Amino acid sequence: MLKRYLLAPGPTPVPPEALLAMAMPIIHHRSPDFLPVLDSAKKGLQWLYQTKNDVLIICSTGTGGMVGSVNNFFSPGDKALVINAGNFGERWTKICKAYNLSVEEIKIDWGYSVKPEEVEKALKKDPSIKGVFVQASETSTGVYHDIKAIAGIVKKYENTILVVDAISALVAHDLRMDEWGIDVLIGGSQKGLMLPPGLAFIGVSEKAWTFAEKSTAPKFYFNFKAERKKLKDNQTNFTSPVTLIIGLNESLKLLQAEGLENAFRRHEKLAHATREAVRALGLEMFTKESPSCSVTAINAPAGIDGQEIYKNLRVKYGITAAGGQGQAKGRIFRIAHLGYAGTFDVITAIAGVEMVLKGMGHPVKLGTGVAVAQELLIV
Amino acid sequence: MLKRYLLAPGPTPVPPEALLAMAMPIIHHRSPDFLPVLDSAKKGLQWLYQTKNDVLIICSTGTGGMVGSVNNFFSPGDKALVINAGNFGERWTKICKAYNLSVEEIKIDWGYSVKPEEVEKALKKDPSIKGVFVQASETSTGVYHDIKAIAGIVKKYENTILVVDAISALVAHDLRMDEWGIDVLIGGSQKGLMLPPGLAFIGVSEKAWTFAEKSTAPKFYFNFKAERKKLKDNQTNFTSPVTLIIGLNESLKLLQAEGLENAFRRHEKLAHATREAVRALGLEMFTKESPSCSVTAINAPAGIDGQEIYKNLRVKYGITAAGGQGQAKGRIFRIAHLGYAGTFDVITAIAGVEMVLKGMGHPVKLGTGVAVAQELLIV
Repeated sequence: MLKRYLLAPGPTPVPPEALLAMAMPIIHHRSPDFLPVLDSAKKGLQWLYQTKNDVLIICSTGTGGMVGSVNNFFSPGDKALVINAGNFGERWTKICKAYNLSVEEIKIDWGYSVKPEEVEKALKKDPSIKGVFVQASETSTGVYHDIKAIAGIVKKYENTILVVDAISALVAHDLRMDEWGIDVLIGGSQKGLMLPPGLAFIGVSEKAWTFAEKSTAPKFYFNFKAERKKLKDNQTNFTSPVTLIIGLNESLKLLQAEGLENAFRRHEKLAHATREAVRALGLEMFTKESPSCSVTAINAPAGIDGQEIYKNLRVKYGITAAGGQGQAKGRIFRIAHLGYAGTFDVITAIAGVEMVLKGMGHPVKLGTGVAVAQELLIV
Repeated sequence: MLKRYLLAPGPTPVPPEALLAMAMPIIHHRSPDFLPVLDSAKKGLQWLYQTKNDVLIICSTGTGGMVGSVNNFFSPGDKALVINAGNFGERWTKICKAYNLSVEEIKIDWGYSVKPEEVEKALKKDPSIKGVFVQASETSTGVYHDIKAIAGIVKKYENTILVVDAISALVAHDLRMDEWGIDVLIGGSQKGLMLPPGLAFIGVSEKAWTFAEKSTAPKFYFNFKAERKKLKDNQTNFTSPVTLIIGLNESLKLLQAEGLENAFRRHEKLAHATREAVRALGLEMFTKESPSCSVTAINAPAGIDGQEIYKNLRVKYGITAAGGQGQAKGRIFRIAHLGYAGTFDVITAIAGVEMVLKGMGHPVKLGTGVAVAQELLIV
């Protein structure tokens, strides 16, 4: 019996409160039983999104939310500016191209974040750009992009909206939809919201809704205008994923009890402790600047394969962290501190990394990183 | 405390075996823990589909499976023949139009099933029709279309494939994908498979895969070729809805223990008993021919609103059945006997209907319908 510890950047552990609620007998999505459930989820999401806008709930993975944010607000031929700083930035490009948008990329070296002035430059050069697409937290590189600054730029352009994939950033980062002027803000269930995969959330500004009026891309399953209409009656356009929405209310209740500021601070503290502990082991961050509070990306020491670190953590110690994706595969490993995460998840991760590295012949003084994390997490 | 009874045509009750398995701590979809889970689900679905073809698993409602079956096999301008015999037939037309297919409808009066020779006539007249779209069970009218006969016709046309929405028919009806030559067979989790909403299943024949090679409709989230490739490695293209797939294995285990033939016979028996019991109460079927084994659609007695019967069942007795949809709203009510359903679900439904009708002033001799159902379900 090898006890398991889930420290991956999604799915993240689901709290028992949500697991139990979701194990209750199912109810019908068109019955009045369900109306208060969706009403409460809807309001909870607005609280989390710091918005008065609609936050749509769709039955899909987070990627479905990204696809819907392309086919609902844009048309073939529209110009898209994609900030491509990793695997998920690349996904924006692929989705935009699948829907025949004309894509211009700001390509950023993996491990770096976009300079907001580059967005400004691109928009000045071509104000006909209809959408700027970015990740808040680029999960593949552990980078956080400065959404506040980017939103401040995009909102000056009345024919441009800002579309933010915050799937792995929500709950871990302060994202002020209304105050900053984010137009489309996308979340997913299996990250900071501590639920199984299956829900995408899409916050939509009034400016973005005017774009939806002009969109000619084909839409049926991801049809945001139809969802908006149904949401007013506490319904979804198609069969509601009732079980997950019941779980969502439990997660939101836990977060509301903690408070939004406290949730952000908790993630910041866990992320900071993880980075400092790893540095104390003489390891380097893969993330060169603006590290995400959701996930820490670490370079494997010279001569050691990052995938082997990931595998040893899992096979020898029952810890499911993450390896690298795309061009970072083999070079890095990643540790999440996202959602239902606390002090001893970081301690477990660091202790496990120390033991794995020592086991692989890398010189490590056991307990060095752990002590640093303890120091930073003492209360 | 009003005890609840769920007798709706989806979501249907989830068996405790599946609820408990889904309440276990979540695992990671890219970890080796998950590979045997998906492998077993994939093989179980092939067993249920009676096919050697791939059966894809997508994170969406059943409608997502319908949309994917349009945008993956067809292109703008392609000719579609839609059998529109109710609310879900109408949905085929809407989806095909959303993807700019050219739609010809065989429009059937609600309550009736398509005559296979009408399909033959339409294909003879225009062999350039690329796809025939039909429901196996049209949930809104309680009608089962003769899929075997229709498949026998369509397979003679090498440039035409048959796309069957079996979302509410799977498990309740014998649908022999390979033997009959069904090209695309769509299922959903929250019906006969006794799970929460969130999964669509799509069986795809080799003939249909050749259509996929030529499709130019935009595809990203519903990308069947990409899913097929990943499925070979026991993965899904995007984050797997792990929790639901774990539940799916439990449902499939229950069905495999029962046996496919027995599951079909159980549904047939429950459906037959429901119809006969309702007739014994002097009520008329809304379904004029070829009744579905999943759901029974019943005319409200003259002077009584069908929606009121549905409401009284729910409010007074805790029974969630269904009202009418579209043009049938107010005229009918519907009772499901689908998935995790047995003898005393039918008894409950019939007893409840008797009590509601009596309460609404309709002349009913209590126990009349119940006795007929008992007689037919005695073992």
